[in-house]
Amino acid sequence: MSNIKLHCFAQSGNAYKVALFLEMAGLGWEPVPVDFFNKATQGAEFRAKLNPLGEVPVMERDGRLFTQSGAILTRLADETGLFAGRDADERYEILQWLLFDNHKFTSFYATLRFLLAFAKTGETPVTENLRGRVKAAYKLVDAHLATRSFMVGERPTIADLSMAGYVYYPEETGVDWSAYPHLSAWRDRIAALPGWKHPYDVMPGHPLSA
Amino acid sequence: MSNIKLHCFAQSGNAYKVALFLEMAGLGWEPVPVDFFNKATQGAEFRAKLNPLGEVPVMERDGRLFTQSGAILTRLADETGLFAGRDADERYEILQWLLFDNHKFTSFYATLRFLLAFAKTGETPVTENLRGRVKAAYKLVDAHLATRSFMVGERPTIADLSMAGYVYYPEETGVDWSAYPHLSAWRDRIAALPGWKHPYDVMPGHPLSA
Repeated sequence: MSNIKLHCFAQSGNAYKVALFLEMAGLGWEPVPVDFFNKATQGAEFRAKLNPLGEVPVMERDGRLFTQSGAILTRLADETGLFAGRDADERYEILQWLLFDNHKFTSFYATLRFLLAFAKTGETPVTENLRGRVKAAYKLVDAHLATRSFMVGERPTIADLSMAGYVYYPEETGVDWSAYPHLSAWRDRIAALPGWKHPYDVMPGHPLSA
Repeated sequence: MSNIKLHCFAQSGNAYKVALFLEMAGLGWEPVPVDFFNKATQGAEFRAKLNPLGEVPVMERDGRLFTQSGAILTRLADETGLFAGRDADERYEILQWLLFDNHKFTSFYATLRFLLAFAKTGETPVTENLRGRVKAAYKLVDAHLATRSFMVGERPTIADLSMAGYVYYPEETGVDWSAYPHLSAWRDRIAALPGWKHPYDVMPGHPLSA
């Protein structure tokens, strides 16, 4: 499994989910920078050539394109056996967390961070609403991790890598991590795994040029 | 595959996704009403006994509990071969749409409808923001369906059943379906399939008592 390119940018935690798998699995890969902040993903060319949904990550392998971080992670886990479920029940349990991550855990946080740190909307009813949803999602995961080291099966899986997408970014969002001690410990546990790298060290485009 | 109970309520399109599979697959099942509007899913008993995440659907089968509509649909499709992908690539493509549905297609619309029709917040910056996101998601799916009858592989799959979760509800949300002709045609196409039923006819609790 060689010749992997990942269309990505440093600030995208959704791209980081895949980058982190590729790094931790020791697969060779090469980032292809996407100029998100100049609206590259919204352009007709990106949509026509890479992803009609206008999103990163796009993984390119032997000329084929793969999109949606959760689907890419599932495919890579299935193919390599790495960070995969050990049986059908574990695979469905991983799928549950991938869905929860896309629905609530990553989704609300990523939007909150985008609005505050990049769109610079300041505090608005929308950011306040999102922060409430982030806190509810974090609280659920914190409770889940109170009795477990990793999300599924006491070893790191793609459920963890997916949910780790946005947890290392430093931008201020008004979410106090000290309120989630088990989630915080899990975040440190993932960062201590072999091959882990920070998103700003593994994908291109940080810091943003003025 | 008998003895299926589905903890649900009529207004939950996420529960409807599973109810619709069970109906269209001709599997016998029995609804168990959940009193969502009196906060049943937020209570300690529901979380302890049925789902720590405080969500429906919860499918109960031979004493085992299954949660997350996308994971339940995947399991049911895998087990029965109904509404399933025909090969690995179709299964990953279905997974992409399940993730997109949970992230953007169902998610934003369900929240918009909840706020306007049930929480009755009236128009706010939050509903306006959500409606913009709904329209963006609907536009993408409308374009996808311009050249296809169903989401994946020219036959109905669980990707369609998942995305159909909230499209039949009558409550006013300020989203004009006439702007999405291919999506509208797809919605009619699903409703014409054998075994299809409207969510308010298949799950308990409609209309809400005053």
